[in-house]
Amino acid sequence: MGLVRIGVIGIGNMGSSHVQMLYQGRINGAELTAVCSRNESRIEWVKSQTKGNVKIFKDEESFFNDSEIDAVLIATPHYSHPKLATEAFAKGKHVLIEKPAGVYTKNVLEMNAAAKASGKVFSIMYNQRANPLYQKIRDLIQSGQLGTIKRTNWIITDIYRPQSYYDSSKWRATWEGEGGGVLINQALHHLDIWQWTTGCMPKRIRAVSSFGKYHDIEVEDDVTAFVEYENGATGVFIASTGEAPGTNRFEIVGDRGKLVVENEELIFFQLAQSEREFNSSYIGGFGMPDYQKKEISVTSNNANHTLIIQNWVDAILKGSPLLSPGEDGVKALEISNAIYLSSWLNETLELPINPEFYYEKLQEKINASTFKKKHVSNSTLDVNGTH
Amino acid sequence: MGLVRIGVIGIGNMGSSHVQMLYQGRINGAELTAVCSRNESRIEWVKSQTKGNVKIFKDEESFFNDSEIDAVLIATPHYSHPKLATEAFAKGKHVLIEKPAGVYTKNVLEMNAAAKASGKVFSIMYNQRANPLYQKIRDLIQSGQLGTIKRTNWIITDIYRPQSYYDSSKWRATWEGEGGGVLINQALHHLDIWQWTTGCMPKRIRAVSSFGKYHDIEVEDDVTAFVEYENGATGVFIASTGEAPGTNRFEIVGDRGKLVVENEELIFFQLAQSEREFNSSYIGGFGMPDYQKKEISVTSNNANHTLIIQNWVDAILKGSPLLSPGEDGVKALEISNAIYLSSWLNETLELPINPEFYYEKLQEKINASTFKKKHVSNSTLDVNGTH
Repeated sequence: MGLVRIGVIGIGNMGSSHVQMLYQGRINGAELTAVCSRNESRIEWVKSQTKGNVKIFKDEESFFNDSEIDAVLIATPHYSHPKLATEAFAKGKHVLIEKPAGVYTKNVLEMNAAAKASGKVFSIMYNQRANPLYQKIRDLIQSGQLGTIKRTNWIITDIYRPQSYYDSSKWRATWEGEGGGVLINQALHHLDIWQWTTGCMPKRIRAVSSFGKYHDIEVEDDVTAFVEYENGATGVFIASTGEAPGTNRFEIVGDRGKLVVENEELIFFQLAQSEREFNSSYIGGFGMPDYQKKEISVTSNNANHTLIIQNWVDAILKGSPLLSPGEDGVKALEISNAIYLSSWLNETLELPINPEFYYEKLQEKINASTFKKKHVSNSTLDVNGTH
Repeated sequence: MGLVRIGVIGIGNMGSSHVQMLYQGRINGAELTAVCSRNESRIEWVKSQTKGNVKIFKDEESFFNDSEIDAVLIATPHYSHPKLATEAFAKGKHVLIEKPAGVYTKNVLEMNAAAKASGKVFSIMYNQRANPLYQKIRDLIQSGQLGTIKRTNWIITDIYRPQSYYDSSKWRATWEGEGGGVLINQALHHLDIWQWTTGCMPKRIRAVSSFGKYHDIEVEDDVTAFVEYENGATGVFIASTGEAPGTNRFEIVGDRGKLVVENEELIFFQLAQSEREFNSSYIGGFGMPDYQKKEISVTSNNANHTLIIQNWVDAILKGSPLLSPGEDGVKALEISNAIYLSSWLNETLELPINPEFYYEKLQEKINASTFKKKHVSNSTLDVNGTH
């Protein structure tokens, strides 16, 4: 295969950024050959950015049927990801989907099955997995240096959004349009990194979410979730778009120390011995194991959408292992779905939750919605600097 | 009145420290005139520390009846505080009780009523209220500089205890002996400071506690509590004696910024304008209010038992306002009782909880206990450096 011929579907905030990246030749081994959008003004924008050498499609069917497209990058609104990816797989395309994988796990699991059956390269834009900071944390945990995990804690509130952000599109922050708020949009990366770095999916979730607490929206903008893991460890995840200036502090406690990331600095408090060993052998009453405080030199890099696209193209061309396999998209979504369900039902839930039941509950939210946005600006926002 | 003549009852870890402090004349306006203990070896220890000018009592009745004692400092095991304080008030003594005020709110409320009826000076050893660090936080909040509180978060796990600590006394960390673990002992100060600095008592609590998770004990050594306040703000409190090296990080988010205390450093992220105002007026989509990061110069001082005793003596002699009125003891205990009850019942609870109901549930724990400690060293621990 020569260059991977990429078609981008969906030219909103993220899609526009990807179109520019591909058209400007910033992905080795790939070229932008087509875009697909139903939005006239966004099509005009594409025309203004390109020199007539990019095919423009207004309907999905012709786009997916085009034999000059090898691979599609799906950057449409969340709900459509599984359906469009499944269509793409059926037409033999490789697929990279923007996050989230979808809005509910039911059709995401179906998409994963279609991906597997197709044998095509499937990736998801969990671009934070390309961040050296989180790769280092994952390495320290997976290599056993932190020891058995006891507790995790992520306060992720430096994802502030004012009302005008929510008013930029009609679909944004509605049950019907986006299927959620801070969990499905801003903090989904963190939900993924939380489970990916630790290698631990929660077994039980208890959450309290506030809907439209800080904004005139119907979905959640403030969440606290308590989780329990298989091994008895506990965790707390706090996300909000209503706090300024926010916090981004991720703490992971293990039997051999503690990792803390805050202000993009990683500190490893490394114990000289296992705490469990110390506990049972020390006889002094007061006292604790010795430790070293190590500042781990690693540069955080959030501007890594490029790396995920490049990795996907490399996987297509050379069979490189994927940093962010598409099938993994269901994990953060599973946590997110469970947090909603726990909040709605006011119950502690075991994971995995029932995908059909969640789907039904979400439909109830959509059908019961009476929310109307007062002001919609229909603007395309510059996403530079966001995740 | 000349010197306040103080009797100390209970010569364990804390009582021994107070005896030395008073006998060495480190409290102005006070003298140690008596001690009361049923423990022969601790009485011998007192004799070894003093020159025969301190009366020794082995029974409480004679101690409280002694007319040469103006004020009593109660440092006995937790359960006995309300009963002994009530007896002291009945004999016209001023009272300073070690924390906790008691183990359940039922008899603490009765003690508070007895204190009020007596007109005597009643204080509790919430010595962290004398810490300039927490006084500064309280001031920044109570003066309105932080704005309306949105969220609080305290991770207090730098209170590590190895098994040998729990094995130092038979009564320690049992339902019958201590009535709880990390909440009633190590983290009770933090529960008090949490409500005292913010001026907010939780209205609703949902907690998960693990009992004997990290130690061979029957009470809790690991707790996560989620709270909701009257104004819709939320909070999380995490305490554990099983993590090393632990964390002590207290974050308070308000409409005009954020306070963070970690490693005894206080940082005030002060917004240029109210976030609520910014939210409704800003039109840029992405963006947030300007802020200044201010490092507040204040020295944390944990060694402040002296200050609380001095303040109590000053209140007796000169009517000085109490830093830590005894009646306030019920507040942290109320939170603590609610955390236990929520954990036991697996329910979200409204505060105040029913004092009688909690008392009954605690009796059930005591009566159902089959736990026996394997090793008890019966040692008196040096509490220098602890709170």
